[in-house]
Amino acid sequence: MTITAEYVVTGMTCGHCVNAVTEEVTAIEGVSDVQVVLETGALAVTSAEPVPYASIEAAVDEAGGYTVAPA
Amino acid sequence: MTITAEYVVTGMTCGHCVNAVTEEVTAIEGVSDVQVVLETGALAVTSAEPVPYASIEAAVDEAGGYTVAPA
Repeated sequence: MTITAEYVVTGMTCGHCVNAVTEEVTAIEGVSDVQVVLETGALAVTSAEPVPYASIEAAVDEAGGYTVAPA
Repeated sequence: MTITAEYVVTGMTCGHCVNAVTEEVTAIEGVSDVQVVLETGALAVTSAEPVPYASIEAAVDEAGGYTVAPA
């Protein structure tokens, strides 16, 4: 099974923000791919098993205090 | 001798930008302290000997493509 869950991140302003979010979300156990688009805030998280929403929220916050919502 | 030279950096948008500029300018040979203020773009560089302006420019560019001018 491969799941790609889509979210929207608010507050990213530059490429460093994108890198920070990508890095933190990639570090979540079970996550195999992460795509982030600065202009739209789009965050796509690919994993074999569902990733708890709380883990996504925590990672996005840790990256720089950004907020996330389901897309 | 301790010199603190002041510059203005244009283009920083977030704390990651501040960290990147601080890190790159701190890495310049002879630099002993670096202070960056996101809101104003202020960059203060402390060193024992004068630091070539070209080194400041290169470091600020390397940090994320920002531009710098004397304050």
